[in-house]
Amino acid sequence: MEAPSSPPPKKSVSLSGIIAGETAICTVGRNGDNLHYRGYPILELAQGCAFEEVAYLLIHGRLPDEAALAQYRQQLGESRGLPREVITALEHIPAATHPMDALRSGVSALGCVLPEKDEHGTAGARDIADRLLSALPSLLLYWYHFSRHGRRIDTATNASSVAAHFLHLLRGQPALPEHIRALDQSLILYAEHEFNASTFANRVVASTGADLYSAVCAGIGALKGPKHGGANEVAMDIIARYDTADEAETDIVHRLNQHEVVIGFGHPVYTRADPRSPIIKSIAQRLCQSGGNPRLFDIAERIESVMQRDKALFPNLDWYAAPAYHMLGIPTELFTPLFVIARCAGWAAHAIEQRGSGKIIRPTAVYTGPDERRVPAIEERSA
Amino acid sequence: MEAPSSPPPKKSVSLSGIIAGETAICTVGRNGDNLHYRGYPILELAQGCAFEEVAYLLIHGRLPDEAALAQYRQQLGESRGLPREVITALEHIPAATHPMDALRSGVSALGCVLPEKDEHGTAGARDIADRLLSALPSLLLYWYHFSRHGRRIDTATNASSVAAHFLHLLRGQPALPEHIRALDQSLILYAEHEFNASTFANRVVASTGADLYSAVCAGIGALKGPKHGGANEVAMDIIARYDTADEAETDIVHRLNQHEVVIGFGHPVYTRADPRSPIIKSIAQRLCQSGGNPRLFDIAERIESVMQRDKALFPNLDWYAAPAYHMLGIPTELFTPLFVIARCAGWAAHAIEQRGSGKIIRPTAVYTGPDERRVPAIEERSA
Ligand SMILES: CC(C)(COP(=O)(O)OP(=O)(O)OC[C@H]1O[C@@H](n2cnc3c(N)ncnc32)[C@H](O)[C@@H]1OP(=O)(O)O)[C@@H](O)C(=O)NCCC(=O)NCCS
Ligand SMILES: CC(C)(COP(=O)(O)OP(=O)(O)OC[C@H]1O[C@@H](n2cnc3c(N)ncnc32)[C@H](O)[C@@H]1OP(=O)(O)O)[C@@H](O)C(=O)NCCC(=O)NCCS
Repeated sequence: MEAPSSPPPKKSVSLSGIIAGETAICTVGRNGDNLHYRGYPILELAQGCAFEEVAYLLIHGRLPDEAALAQYRQQLGESRGLPREVITALEHIPAATHPMDALRSGVSALGCVLPEKDEHGTAGARDIADRLLSALPSLLLYWYHFSRHGRRIDTATNASSVAAHFLHLLRGQPALPEHIRALDQSLILYAEHEFNASTFANRVVASTGADLYSAVCAGIGALKGPKHGGANEVAMDIIARYDTADEAETDIVHRLNQHEVVIGFGHPVYTRADPRSPIIKSIAQRLCQSGGNPRLFDIAERIESVMQRDKALFPNLDWYAAPAYHMLGIPTELFTPLFVIARCAGWAAHAIEQRGSGKIIRPTAVYTGPDERRVPAIEERSA
Repeated sequence: MEAPSSPPPKKSVSLSGIIAGETAICTVGRNGDNLHYRGYPILELAQGCAFEEVAYLLIHGRLPDEAALAQYRQQLGESRGLPREVITALEHIPAATHPMDALRSGVSALGCVLPEKDEHGTAGARDIADRLLSALPSLLLYWYHFSRHGRRIDTATNASSVAAHFLHLLRGQPALPEHIRALDQSLILYAEHEFNASTFANRVVASTGADLYSAVCAGIGALKGPKHGGANEVAMDIIARYDTADEAETDIVHRLNQHEVVIGFGHPVYTRADPRSPIIKSIAQRLCQSGGNPRLFDIAERIESVMQRDKALFPNLDWYAAPAYHMLGIPTELFTPLFVIARCAGWAAHAIEQRGSGKIIRPTAVYTGPDERRVPAIEERSA
């Protein structure tokens, strides 16, 4: 059951190349470096669309026309408030909590307060998905400001997009259009990626007939891991470790010799390149230049050259997302939560598709444990 | 990559018979009807062990001797309290919430307050797993009594086991030994089941390097679905629908003719029988008789005969767990949460094993969507 004409499976990936279902949402890695959302090439979407159009495409199945888009933006704008019980829950999450844990708890609380009524239908699930696009930045930044500064922010803004809403809540004032568009494009790139680990976890949950919030909570948990969404934060830590590109080169060469994995490079599916990388790279370059920190970009780019030269490895989306988000003034600990906000569109589309298939996901395992044996009486056991 | 000499894949199961990894924890369905935990047959474990021994076996890798078991019971007894912040979070979960959503939120909150410190190690994860065995009944029943009766219960009890602790908190007083043992045995049966959907969701989350709470939250979400853990509640609803066995027979025959799926029958892996079913069936029979409700058992048994006769389908664990739990005075809405308490032992064992493998789980999909196409200008789209 391998995918047709697939490359050899990746060593560090379970189920690599194995088909776990059907999808009409996305293709990843055709010819080693391609990405399409519902047939549209990622480059065209990132260049020609706003994140809201892409989220609509994923969740509702088609690109909106002008009237539908205007209506959608208005609907999203009206869903930025948080229920009182959810605010209380957020205020009781300790300040030292990992932001992904806070977000998982916030979504779980929202699922208690505004539950999905009918897990068989799709309309309710689409409504919840749309609401989450607005509620996730509100949840995250309400908790962030409250836990960091004891400030109870108003999560209602006039911002015209999810990206603008996020930056406004983060900074307490409207952001510049070029900053909004940079974040907006990154959200398009992060929105969907076929059967990646978090989407797959979300599909496994949905496959049992569970509700959308449960599926999204699973996605958040999976995305937290440093081998997945957590990679953009680790990438930032790596880049920030160096003062100069030369220093970075020397140290990375040394680490590669020690067989260290450099997070932000390589991919479970792509074999030749990550098609999102050139797009986010040029965004990062522009922000580093206009923001007066070209050195940050130089360090990231030098490490890219070293990885290419010494390991033939290419940067994935997370590598240049790190300096881009840094230049937008986003604290590193919010990088992976931003990924959640974007990917939520893809998760919802997949959860709805999986439930529609009527199939439960239940693979099997190779057993490597002890042969059949008798249970010894407790007196006869050794600790 | 099919399992060796495997039966034909099940129609309604994605990845049926496909190998998604290695495990030393469990085998399910060898010869169509077998179950072993770390090599020990399920019947011997259910008859000869307490749930704590089985949990120890799963989480710590071996059956405890007398000293280790005594120490383990003591440790579990001391972990029944809940942190103040978690209690506050529970008190703000609306009363109308699905108990599985409340449990998911409680575990998520616990993960914020007592986070896993080192996701690379295993000691921290084992400690968290042990704590969850005690904390889950406390979380669930604290919320239950508070939301139903506004009562703030003390979650510390002198109960000598997880089962006794659960029944004590539920009823506000110590339970009879035969009730405790019935629940205890059911927890053994529910504790572990290889790559079932909730365990698999939990492994996918763990595979990215995420923490144990995130993995357990995914497990809870998956277990909630009516095709998985939610089945024991649906089974109760079915059995409770009838006043007599004859009435049940007539109606079930009718429903089967309409191609209705009768929850509680059939299985994603077993082909001949569920080996846990005879064990829970005799428990249910005993409780129905001693509790003065033999009719409940008769109805369940008659439906079993009909399913066998008309569809050659066998009951799974959830079928007779329903009347057993009902006779223990457990509200139906707490049946699936009880499954969580038991299965948490298996989830933790699998999450630790998956992280140890170093592999991320990332399958692929067959694409069924539109061919490559250009993004139309927004004016040229039709809604
Ligand atoms: C995704 C990943 C697990 C795929 O790894 P893989 O299955 O080993 O992939 P390949 O089989 O193509 O690896 C080929 C070789 O490159 C090495 N390699 C892969 N990614 C590497 C990295 N980021 N840094 C250093 N070496 C790497 C592998 O160890 C292997 O080396 P070897 O042949 O000497 O044993 C891996 O690239 C990785 O962990 N990347 C970093 C995590 C990350 O950025 N995640 C976000 C992805 S969107
Ligand atoms: C587990 C399950 C998905 C497997 O279904 P499956 O993949 O279709 O299994 P099989 O291929 O063995 O099914 C054979 C036939 O029995 C039918 N069938 C299976 N389970 C059935 C049930 N519980 N009630 C009625 N018919 C059932 C199937 O529809 C199929 O019928 P068909 O050949 O006329 O199309 C299914 O049995 C089910 O949904 N069971 C109820 C849910 C449940 O109790 N879950 C808890 C499991 S621990």
